[in-house]
Amino acid sequence: MKWIDFPDDRFVVNGLWWWEEHKPKLQRLPDRMKPSVPEAVWTLSQQPSGGRIRFATDATELAIRAHFPTLTYMNNMCRVGQMSVDPWIDGKCWLPVFPTGDNHDVEGSFGSVREAKRREVCLYLGLYAPAEIKSIGLSDGASIWSPAPFAVDKPVAYYGSSITQGGCATRPGLSYQAIVSRKLNLDFVNLGWSGAGRGETALAEAMAEIDASCYVIDFCQNCPTVEFLEEVYAPFLQTIRDIRPDTPMVCVTPIYSASEISVSGSERLDGMREVIRTAVAHRERLGDAQIELVEGYDLLGPDDHWGIVDSSHPNDLGFTAMANGLEPVLKRILF
Amino acid sequence: MKWIDFPDDRFVVNGLWWWEEHKPKLQRLPDRMKPSVPEAVWTLSQQPSGGRIRFATDATELAIRAHFPTLTYMNNMCRVGQMSVDPWIDGKCWLPVFPTGDNHDVEGSFGSVREAKRREVCLYLGLYAPAEIKSIGLSDGASIWSPAPFAVDKPVAYYGSSITQGGCATRPGLSYQAIVSRKLNLDFVNLGWSGAGRGETALAEAMAEIDASCYVIDFCQNCPTVEFLEEVYAPFLQTIRDIRPDTPMVCVTPIYSASEISVSGSERLDGMREVIRTAVAHRERLGDAQIELVEGYDLLGPDDHWGIVDSSHPNDLGFTAMANGLEPVLKRILF
Repeated sequence: MKWIDFPDDRFVVNGLWWWEEHKPKLQRLPDRMKPSVPEAVWTLSQQPSGGRIRFATDATELAIRAHFPTLTYMNNMCRVGQMSVDPWIDGKCWLPVFPTGDNHDVEGSFGSVREAKRREVCLYLGLYAPAEIKSIGLSDGASIWSPAPFAVDKPVAYYGSSITQGGCATRPGLSYQAIVSRKLNLDFVNLGWSGAGRGETALAEAMAEIDASCYVIDFCQNCPTVEFLEEVYAPFLQTIRDIRPDTPMVCVTPIYSASEISVSGSERLDGMREVIRTAVAHRERLGDAQIELVEGYDLLGPDDHWGIVDSSHPNDLGFTAMANGLEPVLKRILF
Repeated sequence: MKWIDFPDDRFVVNGLWWWEEHKPKLQRLPDRMKPSVPEAVWTLSQQPSGGRIRFATDATELAIRAHFPTLTYMNNMCRVGQMSVDPWIDGKCWLPVFPTGDNHDVEGSFGSVREAKRREVCLYLGLYAPAEIKSIGLSDGASIWSPAPFAVDKPVAYYGSSITQGGCATRPGLSYQAIVSRKLNLDFVNLGWSGAGRGETALAEAMAEIDASCYVIDFCQNCPTVEFLEEVYAPFLQTIRDIRPDTPMVCVTPIYSASEISVSGSERLDGMREVIRTAVAHRERLGDAQIELVEGYDLLGPDDHWGIVDSSHPNDLGFTAMANGLEPVLKRILF
């Protein structure tokens, strides 16, 4: 086994847009944004959801050494989804490596195989906890090549809530963005902020720094009230548009929530859906031809009720439904 | 809100076969078996996987008070799957109630609705932790009726490993048995033992006490070696057959495991598959017309690789695949 320290230029990092600014730290925003974004967002930015390490190799054994500074457990999400390194190799799930118990440092094998042939490696980083990659192990004598290119040069950039961040996939490669991106061979950047996706201008500006193929705006469940959303939603879109006048933008209304069984939950989310519909219609009337509304119910609606683990977070069934619903939309826009 | 202490004859308990012997304790084996089963099995028997509380009501609000004696977190399974009370009402997921943080006692609402009409309530109990139900809350003036009958009087009884016990569904109603039983309106009993499903005679005898419509034998991953399985497998079937000569029996070979990427993992499971095939073929040659082999790969095979959260435990995608694969088998046998 040959251990190669990370980072190394032979290992391509995708999904962390400002990687060259902050490497070797695996974070979702550059340090310079720390003063301008909410503290909660900054903390969450240390969780590399959507980050991937990609390369091709003919190694017959692949392993990793990683450090997880924060060891926690969630009620609605398992630790594997929260903080594993999740290897998809030639599109197939190998063994995720994750910390057990109180061990911050992990060394683990993704699997070993007989045949030495070129394979495309994509290591998805954890969705909900900071991670440090120390080194990547390959069987002796293995070659490393550049990974296969994406079908579209620019990534799709997502802004949103905990759902967007990846709660509650059981493994990092099962967030809805990861699923749909594999289906269409797309790159993506995840700016979903658990509990803190509230449409601040600083985050719209951050989004607009990303030279994206498409923006998917998927927040609002984090907004405390319909009125709060109404105040921030149109300005959020406008901030992005001022900087990126022509980039396609997909505005998603809330997916189904189990809280909609109750009258109050239903009224709140229906109100938010109406705010988003109105804002998109307004922009269309202003002549914005690159904006599109996607109804959350078309991604995960009441018929997908078993796709939610708690009140509102999709499980793997829910994220698969969301990816299936988003796939034709992105296909039409990008191809 | 009217709180009714549990147990109460108006609330039907299914899935805990010896309920009348051990109530109010929600456990999977009766106390008299404690001396004869392995200690690990006894401990796991205090986890009421497969247990359900069923009734019909026109209540517009439903709530529960429960106590969870053991609060733990798992790496590959979230707490909601492990220890929530998971309400499926008229077949639709409402809000699961589960302990947060260090709170052993929980009072929570499953949801409240406007329309007072008869609804079928099925409360799935947690898959991987002991639970005590204290009382069930219904809106004032609500009626309670007997739940709708199952399509087949006798339950399907499952014996197996951690996968059988329900690892790693995100909610109790998403174990593969729960899914397939909803599809076919079947009752079921879960005698899956995490890490401890090793084919002991005492467990075969326990299975045979259950007057089942069908036995599904799904263990072996817990056996340390192929040779170990070979020693216990045929005698396990024989013990059940001695007591229940005519009950249909389904023998399942191991589903796909991510460990099969590696040569050693593949050899071990392939060897176990062969042991099971041989044992079933032998019984068929002896004239057993009520035994059937189901290949694990037909339930969850290599093409379902993303349906596994770690090395071997299905996530909700995997359990859905297993349920879909088992459905036509049980349908043919039982209907």
